[in-house]
This record gives sequence, structure tokens and C-alpha cells, in this order.
Amino acid sequence: MSPATDQPSAATLPPLPNPLPPVERRAVVPAGFRAGGGRAGIKPSGKPDLAVVATTGGPAGAAGIFTRNAFAAAPVRLTRANLAATAPEGSGGWGQAVAVVATSGSANAATGEAGDADQAAIVAACAAALGTESRLVLGMSTGVIGTRLPVDRVTAGFRTLVGAGLGGTPSHLEAAATALMTTDSRPKWAVAKVAATGPGDRPETVTVAGIAKGVGMIHPGMATMLAVLLTDARVEPRTLHGLLRAAAGRTWNQLTIDGDTSTNDTVIALASGVAQADPAVPGSPPAAALGRAIEAVARDLARQQAADGEGATTLLVCQVSGAVDDADARAVARAVVASSLVKAALHGRDPNWGRIAGAAGNARLPDSTVLEGAGLDPVEARSRAGAAARLLPDRLRIAIAGCLVYAGSPVGFDAGTVRAAMDAPEVLLRLDLGLGTGTGEAFGCDLTEAYVRENAEYTT
Amino acid sequence: MSPATDQPSAATLPPLPNPLPPVERRAVVPAGFRAGGGRAGIKPSGKPDLAVVATTGGPAGAAGIFTRNAFAAAPVRLTRANLAATAPEGSGGWGQAVAVVATSGSANAATGEAGDADQAAIVAACAAALGTESRLVLGMSTGVIGTRLPVDRVTAGFRTLVGAGLGGTPSHLEAAATALMTTDSRPKWAVAKVAATGPGDRPETVTVAGIAKGVGMIHPGMATMLAVLLTDARVEPRTLHGLLRAAAGRTWNQLTIDGDTSTNDTVIALASGVAQADPAVPGSPPAAALGRAIEAVARDLARQQAADGEGATTLLVCQVSGAVDDADARAVARAVVASSLVKAALHGRDPNWGRIAGAAGNARLPDSTVLEGAGLDPVEARSRAGAAARLLPDRLRIAIAGCLVYAGSPVGFDAGTVRAAMDAPEVLLRLDLGLGTGTGEAFGCDLTEAYVRENAEYTT
Repeated sequence: MSPATDQPSAATLPPLPNPLPPVERRAVVPAGFRAGGGRAGIKPSGKPDLAVVATTGGPAGAAGIFTRNAFAAAPVRLTRANLAATAPEGSGGWGQAVAVVATSGSANAATGEAGDADQAAIVAACAAALGTESRLVLGMSTGVIGTRLPVDRVTAGFRTLVGAGLGGTPSHLEAAATALMTTDSRPKWAVAKVAATGPGDRPETVTVAGIAKGVGMIHPGMATMLAVLLTDARVEPRTLHGLLRAAAGRTWNQLTIDGDTSTNDTVIALASGVAQADPAVPGSPPAAALGRAIEAVARDLARQQAADGEGATTLLVCQVSGAVDDADARAVARAVVASSLVKAALHGRDPNWGRIAGAAGNARLPDSTVLEGAGLDPVEARSRAGAAARLLPDRLRIAIAGCLVYAGSPVGFDAGTVRAAMDAPEVLLRLDLGLGTGTGEAFGCDLTEAYVRENAEYTT
Repeated sequence: MSPATDQPSAATLPPLPNPLPPVERRAVVPAGFRAGGGRAGIKPSGKPDLAVVATTGGPAGAAGIFTRNAFAAAPVRLTRANLAATAPEGSGGWGQAVAVVATSGSANAATGEAGDADQAAIVAACAAALGTESRLVLGMSTGVIGTRLPVDRVTAGFRTLVGAGLGGTPSHLEAAATALMTTDSRPKWAVAKVAATGPGDRPETVTVAGIAKGVGMIHPGMATMLAVLLTDARVEPRTLHGLLRAAAGRTWNQLTIDGDTSTNDTVIALASGVAQADPAVPGSPPAAALGRAIEAVARDLARQQAADGEGATTLLVCQVSGAVDDADARAVARAVVASSLVKAALHGRDPNWGRIAGAAGNARLPDSTVLEGAGLDPVEARSRAGAAARLLPDRLRIAIAGCLVYAGSPVGFDAGTVRAAMDAPEVLLRLDLGLGTGTGEAFGCDLTEAYVRENAEYTT
């Protein structure tokens, strides 16, 4: 029996409920941090290309997520090594950091040992300017692949930036976010709050803030995604990493602009602990609440990144319910937003459910590391990597921009009405698989002639 | 030590040697078959939309490869069932067929039980016209998803086509290939020969011929790929399937236009056995030789399909050597030709090695069924599905259109020279991983504004 028969009254599929705390798009510096942005002349345009986020005192707990590209850039390798070097016993390899220093305009990728030396020199100079050890400074970069960073100008630039004084106002974090940009049309930030309990049962608010750069192509780079999350929560690096990884599994790992994974993707989370509220202390914000705030910020940044994809005019969100489990739901959502045909149809405001169904029918689970990050246990993740998502055509329902267009078989609909509903800056595709309770979503954008133009016309 | 140091004289990377027999682009009907093409008015344009390939006598050995899309179309389901129903004991599920009947203009996908009934009626009418059983007739279709086939017109059309007489001349097979077309700019055919030994040690020539439709988008369909291979070889269906699957693993499974797997992909191989030469008989064409001829035809058809991709102006071939094994080499080659950034750079004639390296560094092995088809044993295929291809940046070398551009680190090259070399209808990207003896290749095309335009501007 088809759901169309089961649920004749379901004329559409509502958006999935959002269990995450509210997010504001403001650049808020949580307690215990300071930030700043400046210029070193890496970018020929002279636009800001240096960003620093640092603690106001000692080291913060730190965790990261990195590209799995075999061509991981020099800053990725250095940051991984520093996090491992500062990891206390039993921390699961996640350590501490005083600062994250970022450059834009040159990715320092595919630059070999010389690039590693450049990155080490930059981080050492920043550490000296901040009065800390090199291994407590993490690096990230974005920009042209295969070009060297101008080390002298970059180190001088960071010294000037730190010397002029980092700060804790919104404009300081805005300057840092702006300096991360490459072809982004606007800087990206978000903040969420968690109610918590501090020492002596004092009510306290914990803040999770983030900045990110969107996914754009630059000469001759590829989609690069950088983000820094800051929280004043007191949380062990190991727990912080677990929360970050789970959040990324539902947000950044569900974001696709053009399917090309960068050499430089880096997300760093720092926890100053200034808020004192401790997830391990009863009454403090439980780790789950902190995790939801981290996920809320990550999700909002991912949405900003998708909306600002290269050449994009429209944010594409696909939400899937009724899957056998969440892993299947996420796989189907990702397959739909990754489909060039769905993306091109979105651009043309074509309510083309055949392409959506075809893309869903082709969904495969990702590799085991992504599945683990999204919550599957390692054994299950290995056994299911690459498997087809479970889907029965006669159970599937599809709604485009709130209009039901397929319910086990084609549903008569007024194409003009659907087309008009699609004429919006954000379009929601809702699929219900009719099989279970698994849910998931994914974020992308339309495929436009501008994407092709911008990526074909740049030349080395 | 980098290969640049090891092999200072290697100014480029030559194309991989081709171990396959020569192919001619002619429409040849092997002994024991007849063909034809006609019109039923499925296409509003009135262009040919019916194709038949049939034996001249009794059933041929038959094997197939099908889409793994969960939305497999009605003809795919029917053809799978018929092949299973006619499979002799011990044949591994691969059976017999007297004919393949194909329609273009409507995919008969996502049409539910009504679509299944339509397809069965069409096949039954064709079987009656051919004087055979329904289960000995296989179907394939391509075109709009979610629309019903006009059964009366289609059955009448097939009756007329069969009644007018199928034939064994090149023009008969050309008519069949032409009727498969949707947005293809030209019909596609190829033929290869195998020297063999018939009864009484008589020298004999075995023919493998194929027709296919290329990958194009039609209103509102997606990339659909259909092919029929015909051979007069005498070969068990089980062996035929093994040879077809291995050939497809190195050819059609390495073909990507836009990453969207269709609901209708079908490849059928028929072996009439008229040539009498038997791979199981010593002195007959060994199965390996027949397999190479099948692969040669499949490879040439795949190249024709890639070159004729939607909006494409350039055939992109990536050949990889020096991989730990062939599975890794194929994964890297496929990752490179599938990269939107590489495809857009090709369109702009940009010798953008950073994008090629980044795409290679992101290569992941496909799922286990594809790995099995390409020769990995089932246990190894399961354990490696979704794993990263093994790659060391300082061992990698890249040549674009014959010009070395990267050899463990950036190599100075004259961009104008490379750009000029890329200004050709076919561009070869050669990668050597410097790790082993594995080789592989993949086929694709450039990403153009025309692709976006054609797929955004069609509306339902």
C-alpha cells in the first residue's frame, strides 16, 4: 500500500523540526578570547588576508577536523602535529592552543618541504609575538595551490597585527572573518548560547561563536572551507572533539558545492573554560547541550557557505525523513543536493521530480570515517561504507518548495504554482522514504552558468 | 627522493599502451543477427524512436549489466526477470534472448505497476511479431522519466518494423543505433574482430559489434546510457557475462559526464554462436581474446559517449600509471575526470595542475559491486569499498596534453605552450603515482555553460 493511500490528507511534507538552539548572525567573541584581522599583501588586491584568534590568557582546549585529501596543505599538517604534541595523556590526541593564525590568498598546498618550513616560520613568529610556544599556535590557509607564502611579509604582518592589539569586540571578530574571505561575497559568523550552571549553582550562560569562509574558487584553487569555533565552556579537548565531529557529521559533511574536497579544509574549535561551567559537573551545561549549540553554529555557517557557493543564486536544502536510519537519510539528502541535474533544474526553477527521484535512487553511504563521524559505530560504519541507501520507489514522497509532486507515483500538480514557490532565495526539497524514523538534511546551491564561467575563465 | 630526481630525463608521460585489438567505427551486423529502426511517435519531433536487434534463428546467449539506481525503470526490471527466467541450470543466472527492443523518448521510469504492464504488453507484441516467447525478448528504454509509453502506438510501430523486415546490412544497424538517440548529436557504433579456430581447425573470424546511445539530458530525464553488443562467438552466457562485466569495469564504469546515474542504464550482450568457434575448445578464440574484443568495443563506445556528453566540446581522458594496483589507478582516473573544477578548467584551456592534484588526492574507491566487476575478489572488494586511493604527493607526476607540469613539486612550464596543446578535441591527462604497476583510465568531457543552459532551461 502506498503512503498516498495511507495518508491521503498529506498534501505536502512540512520542514523537519529543528531541535537546535536559536542562532544569531552576529560576530560575538566569547569570554577568554580576542581576535583581529589585517593585511600582509598576499592578495594582489590588497584586501585583508591575515586573521588571528587567540586566548586572553593561557591555552584553550582545542580540537580539529581536517581535509582527508592526500594533498593536505602544509598548515593542515602543522596543525595536526601541534594538536597531537600538546595532547595530555588520555585526551584522545586532542590538545591545547593559544591561537589560530590564518592566511588567505595562498593555500600553501603542494609546496613540499619548503612549504612546511614556511608555515613553521610563520607560526613561530606569531607565537613569539603572542609570547607563547610555537606548538600552541595552529595555522590554516586558503587560496592558490602550488604557490609559496611570502614569509617575510606574512610574519611582519602578523607581528603588526598582534602588536596593534587584538580585541574582544564584534568588530575585532568581524575583521578576522573578513580576512578569511577569498571569493566569498560576504563574511560569515554565527553565535548560540547555552544555559549552564557555574560554581555554587550560579546560573551562567555559555557562548559558542563561529566564523567561517565560504566555498569559492580562486585562481587556481578549489573549494576551500575554513572555520573557527570559540566557546567559553569548560570542556575536555576529547569531549570537544567528539561534539565537533558529531556536529560536523550533520552539517559540514552534508555541505556540497561542487563535490571537490579541498586540500585545506580545516575546522578548529577552541574552549577557553573561562565560563567555568563544566559539562562533567551536574547542573552544568551537559555535553549534549553544548553539542547542540556547536551544531547550531556549524549548521548556520554551513547554510551561509552553501548560499554563497561559487556562482550560486539559491540555497538548496534537502531534508529527508522516514529513512531506515539517519545514515540513510543523510546519504539520500546529500545525493540530491550533489546532483548536477537537480542543481541545474533548480537554477531553471524546474519542478523536475524525476531528477530528484533519480538522484535519491542513486544514493550511496559515504566512507567509514564519515559514517563514524556522524555517529555510526566503527564496525557498522565499515560494513556499510559505500552501500546503497535503502529506498523503495513506491514508498517515496517528494515535495518541492512545499508542494507535493510525487507520492509513490506521479502526483498531478500545477507546475506554474511550484515554479512560483521555487522562485525564492532558499528552496527546500523534502523527501519522505516511508520506511522508518531516520532523518537528515544536506545543503547546497544551484548550478549556474556563472559557476562554469568563473571556473573556466581563470587561467594560470 | 622524488621522481623528478629519480628520472630527470622524463620530460613527460607517454599515453598508456593499448593492449586491445583495433576497433573500427562501422555498423557491422555479426552473423546470426538482424536489426532495424523505426518510428512510433513517442518523440514529439517525429524522429526515430524504435529499435530492434534480433537473431536470425533461435535464441542467443544473453547477459546484461544494469543500473543500480533504486528507481530502476520498468524495462530494466523486465529484462532482468527475463534473463533469469531463461537461464539454464548452472548458468549463473544468465540466459537467452531472441531480441532486444528499445524505445527512446520516454524512459518508462517511476511509472509504477502501470509502467510494468505497459512494458510487458510491448514486449509481448514484439515477441508475437517475431514468432517467439515473451521471455526471450528483452527491453530497454531512454527518455522522459515519469511519463507512460504510448503502448498502442509502440506495439503497432514494432509490428510494422518487424513486418517490413529486419536485416543484416550496415544500414539496418545504423537505423537501430539512430533510433536509440535522444540528445545525442550522432549515432554510435563500433566493431572489432577476433581470430579464432572453428570445427576441424578451420580458421575463423569472430566479430564483436556494438551500438550505443550517448549521455544526454532530455526533458526531464537524466543521463541515460544504453548499449547492445552482438557477437557471433559461441560462448556460454555465464562466460559472456563475466567478460562483459570485466570490460564494463574498465570502460563504462569509468565514464562520467555529470555524476548522475540513470534509472535506465542497460547494456545487453548477445552471442549467436553462429561462428561455431568456442572459447571452451582449445584453438578457438580463448575467452580472454573475446573479452579483449568486447572491451575494445565497449571502450570505443564509451569514448564516443564521453565526447558527445551534454554541452561537451572536448573529450577528457585521464590515464593513471604507477598505482599500487589497478583499482587505485581507476579510482584516481575517475576522480580527476569527475571533478567539476577540472572539467571547467579544461573548458577554459587552463593547465590547472592544482585542481588535478586536488581531485586525485580526493580519490576514493567505489563500492564493492563496482570493484568486483572490475576484477577484485568479493572479500577484498568489500574491505576496500570507499577507501582512499593510495597516493603520495611527492611521488606524483602530472602531464597535461603531453606536457609535464608537476613532478613531486611544481615544475616550471610554459603555460602558453600547454594551453595550445590543450586546444584539441581530445585532451589526455596523464598521472603517474610512482608507487607500483597499477594502471587505469577514465573518460569524461569538459563542463560548459551549454551544459548548465540545456539542463536549466528545460521545464516540465
